[in-house]
Amino acid sequence: MDAIYNFSAGPAGLPKAVMELAQQELVNWNGMGRSVMEISHRSKEFIEVANTAESNLRELLQVPSNYKILFCQGGARAQFSAIPMNLLGTSTKACYVDGGYWAHSAIAEANKYCDVQVIDAKTEIDGKVAITPAASWSVDADAAFVHYCPNETIDGIEINDLPVTDKPIVADMSSTILSRKIDVSKFGVIYAGAQKNIGPAGITLVIVRDDLLDLASEILPSTLSYKLLDEKDSMYNTPPTYAWYLSGLVFKWLKSIGGVAEIEKRNRNKAKALYAAIDESDFYKNDVHPDNRSLMNVPFQLAKPELDAIFLEQAEAKGLVALKGHRAVGGMRASIYNAMPEEGVAALVAFMHEFEAKHAA
Amino acid sequence: MDAIYNFSAGPAGLPKAVMELAQQELVNWNGMGRSVMEISHRSKEFIEVANTAESNLRELLQVPSNYKILFCQGGARAQFSAIPMNLLGTSTKACYVDGGYWAHSAIAEANKYCDVQVIDAKTEIDGKVAITPAASWSVDADAAFVHYCPNETIDGIEINDLPVTDKPIVADMSSTILSRKIDVSKFGVIYAGAQKNIGPAGITLVIVRDDLLDLASEILPSTLSYKLLDEKDSMYNTPPTYAWYLSGLVFKWLKSIGGVAEIEKRNRNKAKALYAAIDESDFYKNDVHPDNRSLMNVPFQLAKPELDAIFLEQAEAKGLVALKGHRAVGGMRASIYNAMPEEGVAALVAFMHEFEAKHAA
Repeated sequence: MDAIYNFSAGPAGLPKAVMELAQQELVNWNGMGRSVMEISHRSKEFIEVANTAESNLRELLQVPSNYKILFCQGGARAQFSAIPMNLLGTSTKACYVDGGYWAHSAIAEANKYCDVQVIDAKTEIDGKVAITPAASWSVDADAAFVHYCPNETIDGIEINDLPVTDKPIVADMSSTILSRKIDVSKFGVIYAGAQKNIGPAGITLVIVRDDLLDLASEILPSTLSYKLLDEKDSMYNTPPTYAWYLSGLVFKWLKSIGGVAEIEKRNRNKAKALYAAIDESDFYKNDVHPDNRSLMNVPFQLAKPELDAIFLEQAEAKGLVALKGHRAVGGMRASIYNAMPEEGVAALVAFMHEFEAKHAA
Repeated sequence: MDAIYNFSAGPAGLPKAVMELAQQELVNWNGMGRSVMEISHRSKEFIEVANTAESNLRELLQVPSNYKILFCQGGARAQFSAIPMNLLGTSTKACYVDGGYWAHSAIAEANKYCDVQVIDAKTEIDGKVAITPAASWSVDADAAFVHYCPNETIDGIEINDLPVTDKPIVADMSSTILSRKIDVSKFGVIYAGAQKNIGPAGITLVIVRDDLLDLASEILPSTLSYKLLDEKDSMYNTPPTYAWYLSGLVFKWLKSIGGVAEIEKRNRNKAKALYAAIDESDFYKNDVHPDNRSLMNVPFQLAKPELDAIFLEQAEAKGLVALKGHRAVGGMRASIYNAMPEEGVAALVAFMHEFEAKHAA
């Protein structure tokens, strides 16, 4: 079979080298005659897997020592509940910046647990979707924290600014974590479902500043308690061991290619090439203002939407798969997470030129 | 490498045929040129995986049509919170039968959400740990449901009786599901972490009677809502797709060998052989009354505990691995879930005889 370039928004493609290694050692890991998924999470061998994954992630993101790294279950959606239940303390209010579908979903869940001050950050500039400047967001004085989602997978929007506030900033980085350098010390909590840049679906990363561990509500389910998960090294209950192992392989791979600085360079190249192909043509378009375009998720539309199905079919025949846009917006979407090589984007751009030449007239 | 027999209590060994198939198709599943973990959960190919897993499970356990099958995240521990938050309705009380470590843990969590009536079901008969008859358990009239754990992995205890009540019965079957025939219609909710008889850690099964879907508390996290998970076919949020796929392979394997009736026969043979080896000797002992001995988890002690380390080392050298007892009770524990072949137990029994012959004097 020819090379497949997988543009899935998530569960997304994982690095080829990781998948090949995983296959090789699936039934006989570490010379033990069984799979890593068939050993106790409390065995010294698995604890080594867990600790190595954590320390490599700490190194990759330069996580300061006063931040805890937790490996959880339930996806970012479970964190939509966990965030207010862990962080409200005696406050009854939180501030949420609304920049798209996922921020909106987080707000809907937070409403169960507190008064939510919603800052609508969406605007329009020159007919394009854009985000208002963070300096214009006025955070309520009694909000316990400020939540935002820096990359919206469905809308293809990025928020570049950090909220301007002395409250803890909470960020849903599911679709952007590890894609570029970040300054973790600016955040109270960073969380991310794994299935874009970390590993397979079923494991969720939480990075939390240690002064925020004592604010939990009494009705917080134990499996969502940051304090308890920290005390038990993310093994309060049986963790998703295979997903943790695969995430660890992804972290090793990322280190091996040069870490976050190198992947950021590649990611910027990929996004630049793809947006250029869209902008240089009247045949393709993207609705997001250049300042807020996502590096990770590139939605685009054909000038002739009646050709969508043919575009997708012919792309797939060339090994360019999972390009169909989200059902809420239609058209196409190319998700170009860390595991997508630059050649994959080059192949997509070449196909787009070819398709346009055939159908633009 | 010689055959390995994996007696891990969980994450436990999976059927050899399943692991070999999983390895074969890890990087190129279904002719798609990528892994099943690299495709969208909303793709028609994955929905087929999900639906087939559900229908095979429904067939294996003969789940009546008025019961919903949900694939969740968070393990049985997340269900410890989810159960009261989903089922209390307007009641403030629930009844929990305490038969061992896991029932006890469920009670500790339930205390956050309601008044818990605890029925201590442990007793002693002829110097052995036993369970009182269910007829002696008096359930409070205002309890919303009755919870129990029919198999205690750490204590090696089984509760054979069903609670005698007109309240919905909720059972934590993490370590016993699919090991034998059950009558699902007797239960309100059955739940089980996957990592013993279903699949890898990271997916949790819930089987819930459909009249119990409308009793949830307002503070129930959405990711734990039975009603929402049912409405969204367990895809309210991104499910742990690879664990779901592997669970589906296990269900197919179980069907292929003759289903639950056949595995129950094998499981009874395995347990009989192992308990016989223990009982026929003064060198080994098990503290549980024969009426309440677990078919799945067989803890046993040496008459000379100073030999524990040597026993474990020599067993491991013969490929009999993960026999160390839980840290709370010490000694040895052989977990003999569905994936353990009868030959594995025969090999353990042969080793026990050999070890006794060498060290009994």
